[in-house]
Amino acid sequence: MITTINPAGSMDLLSQLEVERLKKTASSDIYNLYRNCTLAVLNSGSHTDDSKKLLEQYKSFDVNVLRRERGIKLELSNAPEHAFVDGTIIKGIQEHLFAVLRDIVFVHMSMEQNKRLQLDNSVHVTNLVFGILRNAKVLIPGIEPNLVVCWGGHSINETEYQYTRLVGHELGLRELNICTGCGPGAMEGPMKGAAIGHAKQRHKQSRYIGLTEPSIIAAEPPNPIVNELIIMPDIEKRLEAFVRIAHGIVIFPGGPGTAEELLYVLGIMMHPKNQDQPLPIVLTGPKESEAYFRSIDNFIRDTLGEQAQKYYQIVIDDPAKAARIVKEAMPAVRQKRKENEDAYSYNWSLHIEPEFQMPFDPTHENMHNLDLHMDQPPEILAANLRRAFSGVVAGNVKAEGIEEIEKRGPFIIDGDKELMKKMDILLGDFVKQQRMKLPGSAYTPCYKVQTSD
Amino acid sequence: MITTINPAGSMDLLSQLEVERLKKTASSDIYNLYRNCTLAVLNSGSHTDDSKKLLEQYKSFDVNVLRRERGIKLELSNAPEHAFVDGTIIKGIQEHLFAVLRDIVFVHMSMEQNKRLQLDNSVHVTNLVFGILRNAKVLIPGIEPNLVVCWGGHSINETEYQYTRLVGHELGLRELNICTGCGPGAMEGPMKGAAIGHAKQRHKQSRYIGLTEPSIIAAEPPNPIVNELIIMPDIEKRLEAFVRIAHGIVIFPGGPGTAEELLYVLGIMMHPKNQDQPLPIVLTGPKESEAYFRSIDNFIRDTLGEQAQKYYQIVIDDPAKAARIVKEAMPAVRQKRKENEDAYSYNWSLHIEPEFQMPFDPTHENMHNLDLHMDQPPEILAANLRRAFSGVVAGNVKAEGIEEIEKRGPFIIDGDKELMKKMDILLGDFVKQQRMKLPGSAYTPCYKVQTSD
Amino acid sequence: MITTINPAGSMDLLSQLEVERLKKTASSDIYNLYRNCTLAVLNSGSHTDDSKKLLEQYKSFDVNVLRRERGIKLELSNAPEHAFVDGTIIKGIQEHLFAVLRDIVFVHMSMEQNKRLQLDNSVHVTNLVFGILRNAKVLIPGIEPNLVVCWGGHSINETEYQYTRLVGHELGLRELNICTGCGPGAMEGPMKGAAIGHAKQRHKQSRYIGLTEPSIIAAEPPNPIVNELIIMPDIEKRLEAFVRIAHGIVIFPGGPGTAEELLYVLGIMMHPKNQDQPLPIVLTGPKESEAYFRSIDNFIRDTLGEQAQKYYQIVIDDPAKAARIVKEAMPAVRQKRKENEDAYSYNWSLHIEPEFQMPFDPTHENMHNLDLHMDQPPEILAANLRRAFSGVVAGNVKAEGIEEIEKRGPFIIDGDKELMKKMDILLGDFVKQQRMKLPGSAYTPCYKVQTSD
Amino acid sequence: MITTINPAGSMDLLSQLEVERLKKTASSDIYNLYRNCTLAVLNSGSHTDDSKKLLEQYKSFDVNVLRRERGIKLELSNAPEHAFVDGTIIKGIQEHLFAVLRDIVFVHMSMEQNKRLQLDNSVHVTNLVFGILRNAKVLIPGIEPNLVVCWGGHSINETEYQYTRLVGHELGLRELNICTGCGPGAMEGPMKGAAIGHAKQRHKQSRYIGLTEPSIIAAEPPNPIVNELIIMPDIEKRLEAFVRIAHGIVIFPGGPGTAEELLYVLGIMMHPKNQDQPLPIVLTGPKESEAYFRSIDNFIRDTLGEQAQKYYQIVIDDPAKAARIVKEAMPAVRQKRKENEDAYSYNWSLHIEPEFQMPFDPTHENMHNLDLHMDQPPEILAANLRRAFSGVVAGNVKAEGIEEIEKRGPFIIDGDKELMKKMDILLGDFVKQQRMKLPGSAYTPCYKVQTSD
Repeated sequence: MITTINPAGSMDLLSQLEVERLKKTASSDIYNLYRNCTLAVLNSGSHTDDSKKLLEQYKSFDVNVLRRERGIKLELSNAPEHAFVDGTIIKGIQEHLFAVLRDIVFVHMSMEQNKRLQLDNSVHVTNLVFGILRNAKVLIPGIEPNLVVCWGGHSINETEYQYTRLVGHELGLRELNICTGCGPGAMEGPMKGAAIGHAKQRHKQSRYIGLTEPSIIAAEPPNPIVNELIIMPDIEKRLEAFVRIAHGIVIFPGGPGTAEELLYVLGIMMHPKNQDQPLPIVLTGPKESEAYFRSIDNFIRDTLGEQAQKYYQIVIDDPAKAARIVKEAMPAVRQKRKENEDAYSYNWSLHIEPEFQMPFDPTHENMHNLDLHMDQPPEILAANLRRAFSGVVAGNVKAEGIEEIEKRGPFIIDGDKELMKKMDILLGDFVKQQRMKLPGSAYTPCYKVQTSD
Repeated sequence: MITTINPAGSMDLLSQLEVERLKKTASSDIYNLYRNCTLAVLNSGSHTDDSKKLLEQYKSFDVNVLRRERGIKLELSNAPEHAFVDGTIIKGIQEHLFAVLRDIVFVHMSMEQNKRLQLDNSVHVTNLVFGILRNAKVLIPGIEPNLVVCWGGHSINETEYQYTRLVGHELGLRELNICTGCGPGAMEGPMKGAAIGHAKQRHKQSRYIGLTEPSIIAAEPPNPIVNELIIMPDIEKRLEAFVRIAHGIVIFPGGPGTAEELLYVLGIMMHPKNQDQPLPIVLTGPKESEAYFRSIDNFIRDTLGEQAQKYYQIVIDDPAKAARIVKEAMPAVRQKRKENEDAYSYNWSLHIEPEFQMPFDPTHENMHNLDLHMDQPPEILAANLRRAFSGVVAGNVKAEGIEEIEKRGPFIIDGDKELMKKMDILLGDFVKQQRMKLPGSAYTPCYKVQTSD
Repeated sequence: MITTINPAGSMDLLSQLEVERLKKTASSDIYNLYRNCTLAVLNSGSHTDDSKKLLEQYKSFDVNVLRRERGIKLELSNAPEHAFVDGTIIKGIQEHLFAVLRDIVFVHMSMEQNKRLQLDNSVHVTNLVFGILRNAKVLIPGIEPNLVVCWGGHSINETEYQYTRLVGHELGLRELNICTGCGPGAMEGPMKGAAIGHAKQRHKQSRYIGLTEPSIIAAEPPNPIVNELIIMPDIEKRLEAFVRIAHGIVIFPGGPGTAEELLYVLGIMMHPKNQDQPLPIVLTGPKESEAYFRSIDNFIRDTLGEQAQKYYQIVIDDPAKAARIVKEAMPAVRQKRKENEDAYSYNWSLHIEPEFQMPFDPTHENMHNLDLHMDQPPEILAANLRRAFSGVVAGNVKAEGIEEIEKRGPFIIDGDKELMKKMDILLGDFVKQQRMKLPGSAYTPCYKVQTSD
Repeated sequence: MITTINPAGSMDLLSQLEVERLKKTASSDIYNLYRNCTLAVLNSGSHTDDSKKLLEQYKSFDVNVLRRERGIKLELSNAPEHAFVDGTIIKGIQEHLFAVLRDIVFVHMSMEQNKRLQLDNSVHVTNLVFGILRNAKVLIPGIEPNLVVCWGGHSINETEYQYTRLVGHELGLRELNICTGCGPGAMEGPMKGAAIGHAKQRHKQSRYIGLTEPSIIAAEPPNPIVNELIIMPDIEKRLEAFVRIAHGIVIFPGGPGTAEELLYVLGIMMHPKNQDQPLPIVLTGPKESEAYFRSIDNFIRDTLGEQAQKYYQIVIDDPAKAARIVKEAMPAVRQKRKENEDAYSYNWSLHIEPEFQMPFDPTHENMHNLDLHMDQPPEILAANLRRAFSGVVAGNVKAEGIEEIEKRGPFIIDGDKELMKKMDILLGDFVKQQRMKLPGSAYTPCYKVQTSD
């Protein structure tokens, strides 16, 4: 079955040359990337976190960019049926299709064309992240600080899921907007809760921003409630986007991905140049999750030290309090931006070291070679630990990672004896608590912790 | 504790004389009515359907209309705390407070002032219903037919509740708006479902209309998602408002209130003058509720005859189909209005007999005297059966009705032997299925069916 | 030729009963009033100020309110052609047609229906004026003070006309909105000037309010630029509307109508209860008009005394300064309203004595009996002088007045010798300066000043 | 005096790298161009068409782009006072300042950065014109064809000026929008007239587009009514922009610039590939200008032949008819775009030969070398004649041109005897009718026609 889709939301004014190049680009080098992201978006709401399975299920799916005198259309072959209502594509998914085209093909093409771009230069990376967000119209001048980034596992239990909805509801009642990594679990709950809270408060400018990247989108497809979808080029730029647009961060229970995110933001906040940055960070969950947060908290204390703990608060079983902490910090965030003459929509002043910006490729070699010893400055250790958890995520749910593990066995994570012990315990907890993969699937670890001392 | 509330949504421009009269009116004859409706609105989300209990719980609550040079404010004493977030009233509830003032006090006052109004004249009643809806800004010229009235029980089980959400979701995906009686259960589910569907379709003009009346509002307080709340003067005007603004009707499982509504609309649709009226009516529920619909269907066939059955369709366990039937009827509804030169927003052409318009006061006498015999035209029988069920609702959940029953024992419902048998079975089913009151409370019937033949 | 016109701007939601009564009302008692105002609106842009001539020219014109199921339409027969562009009525004129229906027929009908209205009660009059303005949606809550009422002659010379445009331009550049009596000359110039100023400042909420009344509308038909047209029931209610919605007043050269307006506002401002009212009043014109303002200024000093002069400033040949004086007073106006808890859109606090509210009927008897002696409090003298000038306006341009003069000769204005002398000089100046009627027509005075001492 | 100006209308979201490069670019190579355009915009409303004089008058004027963390500001030194009201810059001029920055500096910078751009490739030029217009947000998807390009002289007499206002008024009454070259005379009149027409029709989406280029902007500064200002890189791209965004063209009396424009559009329309293009072209003026149009018409017939005459209609002294011809052609324009699947906002299908796209530099050599003989295809002759008139405009009003003429004497225009005779007569007429320069200044011809046969 073939369907033709009109542009929606963006990409509505292209020059003839752009269309031609877009068509050529989309049908060549990055075609597979583009096709798979498109398929992921059409699979919104499906219940699997296994990218590989998903892609295999729709082998005959195809997408084609058509050139029309006045612009472009998309031609879909054998698209998943549940993206349509009575034969018409759901508007939210239609917008997502063009967000994918915009961010995968158009951004790629523009980068190619730009003489000046240097991707190994920290300043250029920050400007590129800005450029992608601006191109996606995510940066709106003049909006008061009200954007809460919510992190947490895609695989959480029902109690935890309902709790994320309650926190979302409380955030929504306080007219705060939501940004998540888009996907199920802790990435969906806060948005649905906030939608009800916003409705009660007649909050019109509701924003449900989904920030994803090509290797994760198939495992965690965006819910159509997401009304601003952005596909960043890789994990590191996605993480930078998160922290530069956040006015506050709420962290729910999660697995290695959540640990990665927490280590990332702590590593940055601990940098001396960021000591005045007023960014509220709240770790919160239902009382059943209290033990989980204690073990995370201990791991942070034991690795990054006590001073790392002062950057976040843990709130157990009190959604209103979690929301209130974030809300009450907004005036300080606003004030600081004014002092710095910084934009409300993008935190230029936040200092991020190249360690946190340069892409980490989780091959077996790179994983094995990670410098995981205690005798390094805490923010560098944070950067390395971040990479380790990032690799585990790849081995769990990303198509390439899964394949790699199938071929060559688990990643070897190697380091300090004591550090490795702590890590093994934490990862073991994630396994026991079914935080590695969606429940139902038996989990085979993709990693092995060892110590070569 | 005393809180002062500013106007929101309406009532923002009053003359000095109006304010003065409003203040006087609000503090005198209809004060109790006004106070109780206000309290009900503030109780949004509470879990009781017993008006009397609710009112007793907040005996010290008080509301006062303050005169300010530029208009009015409300002063609340000892208001329920859950209407506030961090000390500020929820915007949706704030709007509802002024909807109550507008519909109870202002409409009352305007009616008093009007020399020409005749409440026993059918044409005047229809014009009054129009006037109240227009004053509430519910009638918007130029909007295409898309309003679905959803009826069903406030006391339904979890399976049924989830089903109403799914149907709401499918209606929302088809960009249909929702009107219910406002309250919990089948009156809340479709709105919540539609809110998500609307978000997915980027449907901006979402309407969640709640039509209630003073004697029911305390038992079934409006959810703050309701973004247009109207308090009609009595049951009959509320029912007329429902059918004149509806472009389609969906009926979920429910108790005697739902039976009342179904009999009302069938009695009207069966009138020869309405034979060309294209109003889709769908009865729908999960497969667990199939038996319920069969017994309703049989009751209709046995009382109003087979020709009554052709006005509705029964759809079991297929939310998308239920929504599709309504959606597909919209062009015919639109076409008919154009032919009649009738407004899209108010169906002037629908013929309603005085039997369905004149208020029925469910006293023991009136209940006993109902003419419940088979040998009358089906639309008249429908009108009388409607009154019988209306009385049962009053005895179950309305403050006055409960008090009356406590004093004088159950209503006696008397009529044809065969008819009474059918009625007793249907009401007995409602009791067994816990459709009379919210589950948890043991139900003592407020009626007794007998036959004096 | 017959044309049918759809509702625009208001009157789009009427009940069947209202339409029926409207139709009946419009075709009976007040039909002539309604027809003539409608004709006046269609004559927008015509160059005559003689109501009688205009009405005679279109004797065959007819207007008919048609009843449609969903509301109303207007049927025009033999309407002036220049109200149409390529066969379609100009949108601005279409809106004015329904403003006439609303204010002449609908307001009339609503007043009839209201049990409580007492037109001889000062408070009721003020509330009625409010009610008419609210019904016309002129009172918008929350708009900051920025409305400048501009008064001045309909018959002014080209130099003066260009000057009114320049002042309008400067007011527009300062984002002030304009209200005039609507008509040509000083009532049109400021609006056209402001339109350009607003365009330069990208001022979107441009308001060009025209306040007229049935007896003047035919002589001074509203320009279609007027985007809010209100027809008040009579001169006195029109004057009250002017001063209660004004945040500042600019007075250009004019004839007896302008003198009437100046005396009206001075009589009110001089009342002790209004001593704190911050209302900027600027008299301004080109240098060629300096003598004119001197003689007005002297007349005020000689009749109302020096203390009356402090309520206004005279600005000669400096449009920017005139606009700046008004603009700079806005914060004080705003502040006072806040202190009084008064609406920004309607100055309830301004005290107006019944002398200024009760309609004055300029018959020969009433004109002759005016109490024009110096030995009375200045605000009472102002009220009486106001009436004298009002009569002269009627005799000059209003249909009834002209007829009366034709039948019975000029009005006799009788009073104090000294006062009469001053008045005769002022009126004589108006004649010499061609301020009585549009230039081109030879002027025969409609009055005779005498003194019976 | 130094003033700091905030961004308005565009340029509100720049990355740090862009700001840095912008600052560097603006202060270096193209600084003079940028400064002079900025000065021109601030001089809006001044009454001179002599670029050189203007620039000399404000020698001390300076503009500086300031880097702010969140973007940019402009710092103006010794700016002309009339751009401010009570010390605050007029909003329209503020927007124009940033339009200049956007089109001069930002576009320049982006072009530099683009690896692929080829300015000698016809397709690239058309795409660049599109890119500049899109960047300026002039191309709005989905708007129905309604844009009328008005051409005509900046130096016209009062009768002609009033006529352009009348035509603008009639265009506005038909809800057509206006695009001109921005400046005084025939470029201002239609906008002012349309503004009043739009107000009467309550047309909200009023567009007054000014298309200019750096060498002409100082001589013809944009009126602040212009609400979309675009500075194209040169004459030829400006002309291409005109014809690709036009849905109809109205040509008023004018001098050599107007002749240039008419020859340009005729040369294009006569191309065989454009024979199906439905573009209404109307030449119109008051009856006093009839002779003018006859001589233009004859010149066209004698040079390009009779078939060239069928592309335009001449309408004398009938503003409504002129507007009606354009209005009535809109459905055909719309229909053609739909057939071609072409954008309503940009006519991609119009074929333009490189002759009309490549910049012509009017040096003495180039002017002398123009191929002005009758024995060439009419569209090529049109291209060459276009260049000749373009040179005369430069010599008359552009700073560089004036200087060149001062140094080296008049341009020599050389060609066919007969052709030269016709040209000499036409140019002589322009001189006599004072169409070369604003009246008041004695005109010394900047050209000499000769024939070397």
